[in-house]
Amino acid sequence: MSILIKNSIIVTQDKSRQIIYGDVYIEDDRIAEIGKINVEADFVLKDKIVMPGLINMHTHLPMTLLRGYGDDLPLEEWLTTRIWPIEAKLKSEHIAIGTKLAFMEMVATGTTCCNDMYFFEDVIANEAKKFGIRCYAGFSLIDFDTPEMKRECLLPECENFIKKWSGDELVKPVVAPHSTYACSPETLQKAAELAEKYDAFIHIHCSETRHEVYDVLNKYGSRPLGQIKKYGLLNEKTMLAHCGWITKEEVKEIADANACVIHNPVSNMKLATGGYTPLPELFDANACITLGTDGAASNNKLDMFETMKFAALIHKHHRWDASIVTAQQALDMATINATEFLGLNAGSIEIGKKADIVCLDMASPNLIPRHNTISHIVYAASGFNVSDVIINGKMLYHDRKFLTVDEEKIYEEMEKAKEELLED
Amino acid sequence: MSILIKNSIIVTQDKSRQIIYGDVYIEDDRIAEIGKINVEADFVLKDKIVMPGLINMHTHLPMTLLRGYGDDLPLEEWLTTRIWPIEAKLKSEHIAIGTKLAFMEMVATGTTCCNDMYFFEDVIANEAKKFGIRCYAGFSLIDFDTPEMKRECLLPECENFIKKWSGDELVKPVVAPHSTYACSPETLQKAAELAEKYDAFIHIHCSETRHEVYDVLNKYGSRPLGQIKKYGLLNEKTMLAHCGWITKEEVKEIADANACVIHNPVSNMKLATGGYTPLPELFDANACITLGTDGAASNNKLDMFETMKFAALIHKHHRWDASIVTAQQALDMATINATEFLGLNAGSIEIGKKADIVCLDMASPNLIPRHNTISHIVYAASGFNVSDVIINGKMLYHDRKFLTVDEEKIYEEMEKAKEELLED
Repeated sequence: MSILIKNSIIVTQDKSRQIIYGDVYIEDDRIAEIGKINVEADFVLKDKIVMPGLINMHTHLPMTLLRGYGDDLPLEEWLTTRIWPIEAKLKSEHIAIGTKLAFMEMVATGTTCCNDMYFFEDVIANEAKKFGIRCYAGFSLIDFDTPEMKRECLLPECENFIKKWSGDELVKPVVAPHSTYACSPETLQKAAELAEKYDAFIHIHCSETRHEVYDVLNKYGSRPLGQIKKYGLLNEKTMLAHCGWITKEEVKEIADANACVIHNPVSNMKLATGGYTPLPELFDANACITLGTDGAASNNKLDMFETMKFAALIHKHHRWDASIVTAQQALDMATINATEFLGLNAGSIEIGKKADIVCLDMASPNLIPRHNTISHIVYAASGFNVSDVIINGKMLYHDRKFLTVDEEKIYEEMEKAKEELLED
Repeated sequence: MSILIKNSIIVTQDKSRQIIYGDVYIEDDRIAEIGKINVEADFVLKDKIVMPGLINMHTHLPMTLLRGYGDDLPLEEWLTTRIWPIEAKLKSEHIAIGTKLAFMEMVATGTTCCNDMYFFEDVIANEAKKFGIRCYAGFSLIDFDTPEMKRECLLPECENFIKKWSGDELVKPVVAPHSTYACSPETLQKAAELAEKYDAFIHIHCSETRHEVYDVLNKYGSRPLGQIKKYGLLNEKTMLAHCGWITKEEVKEIADANACVIHNPVSNMKLATGGYTPLPELFDANACITLGTDGAASNNKLDMFETMKFAALIHKHHRWDASIVTAQQALDMATINATEFLGLNAGSIEIGKKADIVCLDMASPNLIPRHNTISHIVYAASGFNVSDVIINGKMLYHDRKFLTVDEEKIYEEMEKAKEELLED
């Protein structure tokens, strides 16, 4: 497939964060040329803002099934009376449809790569491959039976999962011990050994709530990050979701380990987890900071444009300083910071990079006039300004239409799945 | 004009906050029928979420001109190096184009009524009338010369403005003393007398920043609300923008006076004004609470869906309580709370009410599945899910297209105005 994008503002996100005016040519899975280009192509677009696809670093894809099912409740009540009873009924067909819908929402709002963590991860990985989206698929390890399998099967099945998906172009298997409160030291250690054996990434919840921090501290004598470190899970492959209740000392430990923090401002605010991910301190320590939406049940959408805006604004608000967490930093967190951490040859618009690209229509009242393109992307744009999405060189979403997905059919299947899950 | 909306989810926002399934029929400027309806109509829509139009209670419309012009700067630097130098160059033609663009953005994202405050308010009022949007037009009173006129002309011109626009169906003149730091006691008092003489609404900034509160306190011996009260401006016609730094005692005074608080969470966070509008306490005191975006220069958009989400989430976050400021409360603030305060016969979908109505497409990945419609509107929707907007019974935006506005022409004029303003 070849794609030519003409007369556009190109937000390169290269080393110098250049913004240039011109054309981008994509051939097969790569960016082949940037400049003034006249060639034939399968698709020709024009007058766009062209930017790297956004990377949603923490989500639970099938939770679209529970979007809006139990809001405005205290966290404990939300989990015990709403989320867990429904999750216990989940079957692989629900997971498949919930995941498809999540991919549709993400792609339609400019996300080209996600980092998931859930049950039935093989179903999710299959859906990602079919959909054509880049997905880091986190196989959850946890100390109780899941809707999919008995707890004793999790570790061997996780290993099978890693073997099966290793080498896939779009789907990368990830070891995902749920958290230090839901995983015993033994589980944490085995997860670390497994990840090391296959050089896999690790995805874990860390210090999301104050309650969690003190529970873990009381039970094990270490805070969550201490547990993660003690059992061999803190290294340059580790992705720590939330970190809303970490200390300044822990900031240093994360930075020293070259681990990655995933900030989920919308979910944290909506679930009222309190605290805040200490972004200014993490920036000062040169830690890797990325962004996620979390699952649709706690957000309730998967729009990374919204997440960038919340990420910038919540810290300005906390520190009474409008210069803290700039639009450029927010965009970096959602693009190049994540790809550099993942070792993914994407995240910027440069020749030779994988073509994971998002186009916005400039002709929208919220994007006029254009004083500053980065400001527009972070503060003024919505995911719905996205007109076209290219992943691995393939046009998946063109002129606001999915090219490879039967939209109506998925909506119908989703409503059916919802009805089924709500039955007694 | 007649409009029939078939087979839809109707978010009535009536006294019992009913959500019903059926049809809505609009004739002339009113909601004529709700139920199962079979009639001919000029427009027939179907399968929508139908809701009252949103009411943006605090904005500075022409500031779309400065969208993204100087973000991530400390407030003082932003004002002195960016906003004020450009504002000094404003001419009525800039105001007209900036206002038109603001109306386009607001209507396209579901706002049917706004409460503005700026210079050149007569130009703004004229544009509102031409556009067909409901606008409470605040004529600014301030103690320095404006780009439009000398300070000594402001009060008499404000009176002329009120006389001119009194009785207009869509545009209502409002007396808008800027703030207690930019208006002397004498100006405040004259504004109060003028508002009383014409029974006009009053729109004023109040306790936006801590700096402001202590400046006013040091200068006059009263905090901003004290000044407002002392000079006769605190009553059931008063709309207080921000209130981010008010005391619990002031909450009571506002509630007792039946004044209205306008919460602008996105602008407050982006400008890092600190503090927070004490919504839980204001609710407890039965104060009237409404929402605004503030101007596009400090937001940077005019999407009230986004503002509802920020309004709900910031208070959950502050209070570590996910049950604080519910989706229903956020929607009430953006609709019926405002119309009840304004004495406007709109804000709900009931027979006999003015037809200020917004339709959302249900078939969008972020609105599937639908467990809870109110949750969807506040947490999952974006302004861009809006498909149709009806104001005073007139279809202004249909199937995502403006029916009465030359979109491209306005974009071109806006870019031209921007270039002009940036010239040395």
